[in-house]
Amino acid sequence: MKIAILGGTGSIGKGLALRWSGKHEIVVCSRDPDKAMKAAGECYTLLSDKGRFCTGISGSMNEMGIKYVDVVVLSVPYQGIVPLLKDLTPYFSNQIVISLVVPMKKNRWYEYAPPKHGSAAFEIQEILPKSVKVVSAYHNVPARKLANIEIALDYDVVVCGDNDGAKRTVMELTREINNLRPLDGGGLASSYMIEALTPFLINLAIRNCLSELGVKFV
Amino acid sequence: MKIAILGGTGSIGKGLALRWSGKHEIVVCSRDPDKAMKAAGECYTLLSDKGRFCTGISGSMNEMGIKYVDVVVLSVPYQGIVPLLKDLTPYFSNQIVISLVVPMKKNRWYEYAPPKHGSAAFEIQEILPKSVKVVSAYHNVPARKLANIEIALDYDVVVCGDNDGAKRTVMELTREINNLRPLDGGGLASSYMIEALTPFLINLAIRNCLSELGVKFV
Repeated sequence: MKIAILGGTGSIGKGLALRWSGKHEIVVCSRDPDKAMKAAGECYTLLSDKGRFCTGISGSMNEMGIKYVDVVVLSVPYQGIVPLLKDLTPYFSNQIVISLVVPMKKNRWYEYAPPKHGSAAFEIQEILPKSVKVVSAYHNVPARKLANIEIALDYDVVVCGDNDGAKRTVMELTREINNLRPLDGGGLASSYMIEALTPFLINLAIRNCLSELGVKFV
Repeated sequence: MKIAILGGTGSIGKGLALRWSGKHEIVVCSRDPDKAMKAAGECYTLLSDKGRFCTGISGSMNEMGIKYVDVVVLSVPYQGIVPLLKDLTPYFSNQIVISLVVPMKKNRWYEYAPPKHGSAAFEIQEILPKSVKVVSAYHNVPARKLANIEIALDYDVVVCGDNDGAKRTVMELTREINNLRPLDGGGLASSYMIEALTPFLINLAIRNCLSELGVKFV
């Protein structure tokens, strides 16, 4: 499968690139093609140094990166997502879009700040062409642990989406990452719950002096 | 400590009664004193049969049960809570009230249905005298496992409350239940998040064919 990662220069995007690179062709995307290629190069070097097999990691600017792939991962901050996606709309056709986007604000603590659509995933589905299948996942996988390929990730990943085939694909991609367990979280309308968990987990970690938290349903 | 459990005839109330009975004096409460005494008797028999030490479990109607205790556990459905608490207001003075209350509705799936106060815990604090200290906890401990005292409970319990002393007491009571880990979830304003997790966990269990789910932050 060919997977473009928007925000592939951040640690969660980089983590997904590293974890999937043994089986899939990864395109690390950024507005700035130099930055994208540098991040892709770093991933490649890291994998080579550890003797890991890599199907292919390249860097690209956003537009070209997303045009010819099967899956687009949106690992970008909520701020600015609306104009970004409107600019990129001509390059979308029928890809699966995985949204990791969490709209939140910080007062004294972090707070979920849902858009009027109820969730970021729902808003993204409204912006993109109807033929694009938005799936919501990976909001609550600790980014630094994901980016460290030596670490097995014993977490649950709740996956929400309105297109059953796309949701199954994302659940399969999740299963390919060592120890992550995908759980069906229902339709996109339920995405607010997994998005809202992110600021809650950040606050919980700070208040209880714990390191970056993920979640397990047991 | 003397602990009254409103809704002590349900499995979560019964579970807390059984788990705390070795160290605390428990009053199982109901509108119907016969039902309360029957439930208390069943708890006592169950503990005796297993050779467990029991500090004392009695049954009482709600009014008398809550009047002379340190802690009141509200393990009752959201529907009817407002008139119930208004009727019981004269019997409250400065108790700690632990709210397990989750306002939810069921359409095709379960949905969190917060009152206009933002959470049930906040609404309960508004109804009761200001001297009462409401703390929100135990919404997401699987009830049937809690009621089976042979089972160790490897779950996290997020505790929210505006009174630090009361929150510490509830965290201490949580630590007394084998393997439960209390986590500080902040003030009552954050309670909506742990209340909203309940319908989410029910849906997750149904969709993924899993048994009753609790949560761990790892």
